[in-house]
Amino acid sequence: MQQRGRQTFVFEKPPAILSWASVVGKKEGEGPLADAFDIILEDDQAGQSTWEKAESTMQMMTIERALQKADLQPDDLNLISGGDLLNQCIGTSFAMREQRIPFLGLYGACSTMAEGLIVSGMAISGGAVDKAAAITSSHFASAERQYRFPLVYGGQRTPTAQWTATASGCVLLSSSGTGPFLQAATIGTITDWGITDANNMGAAMAPAAYETIRLHLEQMNLTPEDYDLIVTGDLGHLGRSVVQDLFARDGVHLGNRYDDCGTMLFDREKQDVHAGASGCGCSAAVLCAHLLPQMKANKLRRLLFCGTGALLSPLTTQQGESVPCICHAVSITTEGAGSWNI
Amino acid sequence: MQQRGRQTFVFEKPPAILSWASVVGKKEGEGPLADAFDIILEDDQAGQSTWEKAESTMQMMTIERALQKADLQPDDLNLISGGDLLNQCIGTSFAMREQRIPFLGLYGACSTMAEGLIVSGMAISGGAVDKAAAITSSHFASAERQYRFPLVYGGQRTPTAQWTATASGCVLLSSSGTGPFLQAATIGTITDWGITDANNMGAAMAPAAYETIRLHLEQMNLTPEDYDLIVTGDLGHLGRSVVQDLFARDGVHLGNRYDDCGTMLFDREKQDVHAGASGCGCSAAVLCAHLLPQMKANKLRRLLFCGTGALLSPLTTQQGESVPCICHAVSITTEGAGSWNI
Repeated sequence: MQQRGRQTFVFEKPPAILSWASVVGKKEGEGPLADAFDIILEDDQAGQSTWEKAESTMQMMTIERALQKADLQPDDLNLISGGDLLNQCIGTSFAMREQRIPFLGLYGACSTMAEGLIVSGMAISGGAVDKAAAITSSHFASAERQYRFPLVYGGQRTPTAQWTATASGCVLLSSSGTGPFLQAATIGTITDWGITDANNMGAAMAPAAYETIRLHLEQMNLTPEDYDLIVTGDLGHLGRSVVQDLFARDGVHLGNRYDDCGTMLFDREKQDVHAGASGCGCSAAVLCAHLLPQMKANKLRRLLFCGTGALLSPLTTQQGESVPCICHAVSITTEGAGSWNI
Repeated sequence: MQQRGRQTFVFEKPPAILSWASVVGKKEGEGPLADAFDIILEDDQAGQSTWEKAESTMQMMTIERALQKADLQPDDLNLISGGDLLNQCIGTSFAMREQRIPFLGLYGACSTMAEGLIVSGMAISGGAVDKAAAITSSHFASAERQYRFPLVYGGQRTPTAQWTATASGCVLLSSSGTGPFLQAATIGTITDWGITDANNMGAAMAPAAYETIRLHLEQMNLTPEDYDLIVTGDLGHLGRSVVQDLFARDGVHLGNRYDDCGTMLFDREKQDVHAGASGCGCSAAVLCAHLLPQMKANKLRRLLFCGTGALLSPLTTQQGESVPCICHAVSITTEGAGSWNI
């Protein structure tokens, strides 16, 4: 790998994306991407006795499907990196207990898929491993009771609130393959512009997205036009417009080249999700169900996938703290090493 | 880097350890390693209004001291990877908010320091970054109220319980330096032999330690005698004896070459900590206060540092689950690349 500025680097040996899979809940399976998911649960409890076990089960289904699509066994993987939103990342740890794949646990909130691609990508590109995966998940019911209220309480949601997606995504990477490829990455710093409303994650995370995208373009010496799509996940409708505004102040108009995974998963008019979708599983499932298939079909050739995470906990909100946020950007292209002169 | 078997690799360009620092609480500062820590807090609240903010403050003090010792500024670092035991890893996220260092959040429970060395080490060895750090912490009071009971409740501890250390450790790594060096690593799989007693973490984690150490030696074609010290962290007195027993069944007698960080931090006779110390900060502080200085002084030349984590949460215990555990091993030597023929 080769450094480009303080926090950006290029994968000189670009890890190839071998396969991907997504598993989502019933509501997500009724949205605009319905036809794109690998598995839509009939019952969000996935046959389990608790929501947390359901979330782990979704991850197990996702990795199994991704392995199947690449014609691989769990033993073929040298590494899986991932995490989730639950306390002590139990959604992932308990799923990985069954799989016995060498595991590096991550906590990046909704930036986890991007973070996992970076960690597993670095391991492959540097030669430490040959095949590695990145995985994450979120579950509406397990997240609601942990972060907000028990579902039976029937709490009213604010207009800026996002809906935690019941979704899991997994990407398999390899040292060789036909692509798409991980081309470069920018590791974010924590950004906190003082938002204290835990029901307005879009506004809290938007500055982190803005800073990382700006830095990525600067350190790579690129303009937004060099990408077919710059996608954040998951800022929702409000956060997306904040990112657009912040760039517009710099005289940069992102236009149709920019979108957010949190605005793609649900139908805003019909599905009553207020500011859009969120949760680690949202950007992961949108990547695996919607974006990577478009790349494989050559409809999308250069993607900047920017995972955004709000690193708060209910306790920090109770203690009056603002929300520290992060964004990691991963450049994914259909071209291999050196073919795109970056 | 070069693969050795499924989950082990050698750093062909070994990252050099530039500096390290440790900050501990009052009780830890009264133990056998009292003279070795960089900073001993007079008050475990570190001048903050909550235990969680105290834990973040400890991390800030630790990274500042480590930077100072290497004559570096936060801006000189390309990456810091780390995490802690608190829900959503807030001990680390809120500390990193102040530092503005590119950050990858980890969750590995007490294996976090080993995991951080692996992630930051891979980033350096592969050329993605030049200087990177690994950091972690734990705090007795924040951990007690989150995992067990409010301190004022005065709950009785069982004989197998370990005492969560109030401690933080940070290691700075660079692409060049005089060492010690990261030489190789083994990434663990999740191991769960069915222990359901959340007050017996030593017994739960020992099988993970056994499996990772055994695999490391096998995949590297080494014997325990090739290391001056194999150290786990943190199994405590009970877990350490389980590891010794498991190896003895294979006819391997670890003897004095093996020890556990959880047995080193406190004086078992005088400090009433039952089965020993635990918490992410324990192995990190023992590494930074006791082990790395011995390597710098050439009293210890080949160390296998094995971080062990119990990836449970209070919720999974309530749901009757057993404890999924992990162990990552990092080989640290005073010799650079190729000088030790592994």
